[in-house]
Amino acid sequence: MEAVRVDFARLRYFIAQAFEAVGMPAEDARAVAALMAQADLQGSDGHGVIRLGPYIRRIREGGVNLHPKIAVVTEKAGMALVDGDNAMGHLVMKRAAEVAIAKARTSGVAWVGVRRSNHAGPASLYARMPLEHDMIGLYFAVGNANHLPPWGGLELLLSTNPLAAAIPAGEEPPIVLDMATTVAAYGKVKAKAARGEAMPEGWMIDREGRPLTDPKRAAEGFLLPIGGYKGYGLALVVGLLAGTLNGAAMGRDTIDFNKDFSSPTNTGQAIAAIDPAAFGDVAQFKSAVDKLLRDLRGAERMPGVERIWYPGEQSHERIAAYRREGIPVAGSVMGTLDRIAEELDITPLRTN
Amino acid sequence: MEAVRVDFARLRYFIAQAFEAVGMPAEDARAVAALMAQADLQGSDGHGVIRLGPYIRRIREGGVNLHPKIAVVTEKAGMALVDGDNAMGHLVMKRAAEVAIAKARTSGVAWVGVRRSNHAGPASLYARMPLEHDMIGLYFAVGNANHLPPWGGLELLLSTNPLAAAIPAGEEPPIVLDMATTVAAYGKVKAKAARGEAMPEGWMIDREGRPLTDPKRAAEGFLLPIGGYKGYGLALVVGLLAGTLNGAAMGRDTIDFNKDFSSPTNTGQAIAAIDPAAFGDVAQFKSAVDKLLRDLRGAERMPGVERIWYPGEQSHERIAAYRREGIPVAGSVMGTLDRIAEELDITPLRTN
Repeated sequence: MEAVRVDFARLRYFIAQAFEAVGMPAEDARAVAALMAQADLQGSDGHGVIRLGPYIRRIREGGVNLHPKIAVVTEKAGMALVDGDNAMGHLVMKRAAEVAIAKARTSGVAWVGVRRSNHAGPASLYARMPLEHDMIGLYFAVGNANHLPPWGGLELLLSTNPLAAAIPAGEEPPIVLDMATTVAAYGKVKAKAARGEAMPEGWMIDREGRPLTDPKRAAEGFLLPIGGYKGYGLALVVGLLAGTLNGAAMGRDTIDFNKDFSSPTNTGQAIAAIDPAAFGDVAQFKSAVDKLLRDLRGAERMPGVERIWYPGEQSHERIAAYRREGIPVAGSVMGTLDRIAEELDITPLRTN
Repeated sequence: MEAVRVDFARLRYFIAQAFEAVGMPAEDARAVAALMAQADLQGSDGHGVIRLGPYIRRIREGGVNLHPKIAVVTEKAGMALVDGDNAMGHLVMKRAAEVAIAKARTSGVAWVGVRRSNHAGPASLYARMPLEHDMIGLYFAVGNANHLPPWGGLELLLSTNPLAAAIPAGEEPPIVLDMATTVAAYGKVKAKAARGEAMPEGWMIDREGRPLTDPKRAAEGFLLPIGGYKGYGLALVVGLLAGTLNGAAMGRDTIDFNKDFSSPTNTGQAIAAIDPAAFGDVAQFKSAVDKLLRDLRGAERMPGVERIWYPGEQSHERIAAYRREGIPVAGSVMGTLDRIAEELDITPLRTN
């Protein structure tokens, strides 16, 4: 089945209708839908509308609170701790980002931790929020399933805990880094299996520590952290900052959201907003960033390399293209969305 | 030549005497010496007394200000910007860490950026400082020589910009992560060359992007960032946070401190202190960290793996061993220190 192009507003509307149909208050449904559609718009299609089915299942099985009281439980000038009351993660993180931005405006830098949240989509979605206020955003999260053993170990005690950073530029697109702490995301392994291709060495190892390249045997092995023990350390630190510090789940307490749809996940996340205006002249900062980015782009290239990119540049171009031409929704995903529409008795995305 | 064991106090005294002999005020000399000896004590021997010669050369060639006015140039509740006035980096970062800790005590979280600093030794030295106050420390720095091209490029526009994180535990040793954003540090390449060994694939590539495994050809190639383009992104973000944000050098402006001993480096660094007490009960946080660390250590192991470690555990054991048995100073390093002592007319480390 071919991909179908849909525009942002239609996608957002469809998602909101679906959530309303399973009992989510209209305002919340619109907010979550906007963020999910934004994920697809920036090309994070593993974290956008493709998650609608699992989210609805979790809502139906009582795993998410549709009438939450998201609240700041404690705060100081440079920080706050937000309790998500088991709401959709998007709502919790949106609130946390707003608090961080407001505090950074007066305190220069602010760090907001989150507990009792849920999966919130791609990390960059929240790291990007301070950009609109000419601020830098940093984001850390505990992943919602453990895929990583400690270095040298066989037990899946850690997730691929992602981190993201967004830094405003002047005339150039912003720098937006969004990365898991493993070499390959699990979705890439699944894609290799679907295409019948072998994985390159360095993605996974088996239980004896040997390279594992057959994606059909993925369940017998483990994802490799970036830089070996370094990525393991990074996954651990990200998890401590986003999870343990906030009283959220980490390690053995992590709920696998692919298998358990009813237990509260107590997901932990954290966002920091840094206001360059507190450090000096913002225009000067932005022009220094522009100069650096242009130096990187203009660097002498390796043979066969057409262009040097920096993180966030490709998604910036994708956003512009998808706004013009519509967001591609894969045929298989569209089929699933058709079934969801039928079941919930809402207008299908195809025809809305 | 065999390694000689010296105790911490003797090493610190020797370094302080050497700096005083080239005109550094006594109090500053003692402070820098304590941090350099601490680097050797924790096993960061590439960043300790081995740097004494280059530091002295820089002082003599006028590249470092021995009578600096290190000052907070701007501050808000959650941040400060420190101007190092081209002092020894150790003095600047010590001051920055103190400011961050003091601010975090009242604001919960504080971020302190630094400009016009210099090389300050291992990243973990400063990330560790908040630990003594039961706080979490994060540290970012712009490296003092560019070894990394942008991904796909051939020009050395980035350094191996390190990051460090230190998180207090209860009964267990603290987690201390200290990592460059490249797979191997340049020192490891030099060590392979000295031993006549090949490097594993994945450390370096040549100008055509092919694996480079002969360490004698290192000058023809580049260090690889961890996780490929991910590590490139990480090096870029660390450099922007530690350098550009603070008005410090980054990219093309970076001074190669191995070649230029007289130009101010305008080194940028940043430290964040996070007070767990602002988030909740500290004892509860620490015991959650202990539990996690014990779970990691107790995980089922791969065949041939004797023990699972977490970052900081090995240096913790090393510190205890070196306190008991003395810090090993390599024979070749001791020879250099003998020549420095003779030239400066101070008591040699060997006999002090």
